[in-house]
Amino acid sequence: MASCLIGRQLSLCVQKNLWLSAAGCRYVSKAAAKTQVEYDYDGPLMKTTVPGPRSQELTKQLGDIQNVGAVNFFCNYEDSRGNYLVDVDGNRMLDIYTQISSIPIGYNHPALLKLMTNPNNLSTFVNRPALGILPPENFPDKITESLLSIAPSGMTRVQTMACGSCSNENAFKSIFIWYRNKERGHNTPSEEELTSCMTNQAPGCPDLSILSFMGGFHGRTLGCLATTHSKVIHKLDMPSFDWPVAPFPRLKYPLEEFSQENAQEEARCLEEVEDLIVKWRQKGKPVAGIIIEPIQAEGGDNHASPDFFRNLRNISRKHGCAFHVDEIQTGGGCTGKFWAHEHWGMDDPAEIVSFSKKLLTGGYYQKEELQADKPYRIFNTWMGDPSKNLFLVEVLNVIRRENLLEEVTRSGKALLNGLYELQAQYPGLLSRARGLGTFCAIDVRDAATRDRLLLQARDKGMLLGGCGDQSIRFRPALVFKEYHVHIFLNIFNNVLAQNK
Amino acid sequence: MASCLIGRQLSLCVQKNLWLSAAGCRYVSKAAAKTQVEYDYDGPLMKTTVPGPRSQELTKQLGDIQNVGAVNFFCNYEDSRGNYLVDVDGNRMLDIYTQISSIPIGYNHPALLKLMTNPNNLSTFVNRPALGILPPENFPDKITESLLSIAPSGMTRVQTMACGSCSNENAFKSIFIWYRNKERGHNTPSEEELTSCMTNQAPGCPDLSILSFMGGFHGRTLGCLATTHSKVIHKLDMPSFDWPVAPFPRLKYPLEEFSQENAQEEARCLEEVEDLIVKWRQKGKPVAGIIIEPIQAEGGDNHASPDFFRNLRNISRKHGCAFHVDEIQTGGGCTGKFWAHEHWGMDDPAEIVSFSKKLLTGGYYQKEELQADKPYRIFNTWMGDPSKNLFLVEVLNVIRRENLLEEVTRSGKALLNGLYELQAQYPGLLSRARGLGTFCAIDVRDAATRDRLLLQARDKGMLLGGCGDQSIRFRPALVFKEYHVHIFLNIFNNVLAQNK
Repeated sequence: MASCLIGRQLSLCVQKNLWLSAAGCRYVSKAAAKTQVEYDYDGPLMKTTVPGPRSQELTKQLGDIQNVGAVNFFCNYEDSRGNYLVDVDGNRMLDIYTQISSIPIGYNHPALLKLMTNPNNLSTFVNRPALGILPPENFPDKITESLLSIAPSGMTRVQTMACGSCSNENAFKSIFIWYRNKERGHNTPSEEELTSCMTNQAPGCPDLSILSFMGGFHGRTLGCLATTHSKVIHKLDMPSFDWPVAPFPRLKYPLEEFSQENAQEEARCLEEVEDLIVKWRQKGKPVAGIIIEPIQAEGGDNHASPDFFRNLRNISRKHGCAFHVDEIQTGGGCTGKFWAHEHWGMDDPAEIVSFSKKLLTGGYYQKEELQADKPYRIFNTWMGDPSKNLFLVEVLNVIRRENLLEEVTRSGKALLNGLYELQAQYPGLLSRARGLGTFCAIDVRDAATRDRLLLQARDKGMLLGGCGDQSIRFRPALVFKEYHVHIFLNIFNNVLAQNK
Repeated sequence: MASCLIGRQLSLCVQKNLWLSAAGCRYVSKAAAKTQVEYDYDGPLMKTTVPGPRSQELTKQLGDIQNVGAVNFFCNYEDSRGNYLVDVDGNRMLDIYTQISSIPIGYNHPALLKLMTNPNNLSTFVNRPALGILPPENFPDKITESLLSIAPSGMTRVQTMACGSCSNENAFKSIFIWYRNKERGHNTPSEEELTSCMTNQAPGCPDLSILSFMGGFHGRTLGCLATTHSKVIHKLDMPSFDWPVAPFPRLKYPLEEFSQENAQEEARCLEEVEDLIVKWRQKGKPVAGIIIEPIQAEGGDNHASPDFFRNLRNISRKHGCAFHVDEIQTGGGCTGKFWAHEHWGMDDPAEIVSFSKKLLTGGYYQKEELQADKPYRIFNTWMGDPSKNLFLVEVLNVIRRENLLEEVTRSGKALLNGLYELQAQYPGLLSRARGLGTFCAIDVRDAATRDRLLLQARDKGMLLGGCGDQSIRFRPALVFKEYHVHIFLNIFNNVLAQNK
């Protein structure tokens, strides 16, 4: 029903030649948007509504095996290139969501394909080691060349993990070990601790907590989930920990008009953080760590000022809690700096920084003192996957060689300016345009309209994602250039014009 | 210090030509143990003690980045073949531990290398999709060809995940969703549930529990860890859930001598399970699921009879708890059947069976009614990795083509008989030889002796792992043939002779 509607609108749109010339022609035409990168396509190309017949057929087939309620469509990854994702019905879409923000340099980047054809790399893919006990010869070099070369300020140690949730879970464990040893004053547990921990009881399994923020998202395994507060769908029916949840500032836009109110809002949240730390200590569940995203992503692209984060960092120091910055979605260059927390301008930003997605491997950096005191306390069979690390080395080479962080800053500026213009043009529809680099978002009137816009944009060859209750999030790859921004703005403007 | 000692023993051993002829010459000689598989080596070859100088150097280098306390040595995976792991000092070891039981068909299997050189497969490695929303075209086919072709009895649905812990965490979540909907009688949560869950509180985050067994191991993320009770090192300092822990039968060996006592022991444990289910229900923390390994692996290779499991399955039915069989270590063919629970001979063995390790991808099978009622309730960015599934298809082809399950049964019999002989020969040193297929274990006098034996065996070119307090576990690949068993027994006999 919805796709019929969109199909009709698409043909209308094509008839009126809205495809190439946006209402008002403010943006460059498709012809001008010639690709600079050989392997990229030169624009979207739609053959059916999405999902097309082949996608629907495959969804039905997979439906006998899994819940397919979240499946958008099926992809032809072989034919996808750069910023364009091709589906199984031959539709080619400009991808501004990139597999939930996890494709760093576009599809089928030649550098990554080349890596695959190097026979020296084969064995890394074929023989997955138990990294914690039997690492491959090149592991220290590769990890130095990749992850350590982009280590956040003050962090000398890094641990790889398989995914974002595992990274946060193990980071929490590092925090708990560190905190308990600090409480003890030594690292020799009592006999009672050794016995009680085996049946999940205190004092061996102490009532420590991690403070998190309303709207935050840190993963969906039970430990992570106790710090995730973005949507009911993640939380309902899951046993959890009684851990404190602080309010995250809800800033008013445009920022320059509400500077005083926003400063008050941030102060209120910080005060609440301190109150909660004291309250949970009194409850006998001391806050061992604070976890926060530099920009709450899944929760709605909620920003706070660098001052807020600097003050929060100070609160963590004052109360002896580890400060854990979750850069799983914000890390990897999309904000114009490799880590979003670099925008805070601090030498000592955190005790722990976790990553995944665009880094291709999960894991976390930590300060020396956070490293577990004994082997096997932070451990699992695979401890990551060196084949992902191989790709990461190459991704970082490309980022440096092609100055992609500068490109992101440039594209991000164009994107945000375009969003400002659009919200000025459609004030009843759009508001709160915001972003750092290409990590941008805009709010739509309501959830239903947001969802409709996403589907209409998709049928016009543009993949976007939602976040929070009524936001659209932009998560292009780092190879998303200014001319891609203009392609997007052209198409999006058309969609908006239909929804005035 | 320890390695000096072992070095001295090694040279003594070589001088005495113990290497080739075991005391008593009961087993076939190295010459007879000619390889049947082209890509395999024909025996261990040691050049240094382990870790050798190059491994030590690399360990030092990695030590600046990570805790390396668990690192055994560094590997040359390029030169490793079949059952033999080669280290960076050129030592070639018969691998009976296989990366904590996670290498299914040996190192650098030609079938897997070939897969890597097929250009059609490149894009699967280079473009990791968000499987839950944008699966690749071949995903339904590949998952049908691989995971569904080995689905446990009664299970039609399978969900891939990145690793073992994620598999169990998400399986628990499936159980909780199913259980709450059962309690509700419908799947529409109340307003109070929707609100309270956002801050981790009941009724939205209910006090449900998972019953597990002392000695069990189900992973190390906080949810999994609440069901893991094998070793202090995993548990200490970690906040946990107040979930019930039942005793796992402690069988006496040889089984045929203690059949009555063992039956009583199993009955006692089952009774305790029922008591705990009732007690936790009264506490307001009902048991939504029971998780158990068919053989407790990490906890010491503890077995129970098929009757025990059948009765436990009935208890789970009687009390409306989901039965979750964790086959992460036991699955994949090493017991001589693809799943260890097949030895119980049941049509309806469980609600959920989780896997990882030898399956190369994590995940779990579930019965139709366990599947989450809505999309995004069981979700994460990657939901597994289709490149691992590609390998699995090929691994299953090899298992079928080479009749590896039969081979495992044959090798396993030879291995267990050899262990029986050895424990008869060294009664003060070894006891409780046990196993299914090549998934075997034997107890050593005490932990210190066990650890010493492992190191001595390693220096003679044989990689073994420990488990529990004083057991050695055997976890060869499925290509571990009878003649590999004899190579092992030869060398191990030498080691034992030194430790009488």
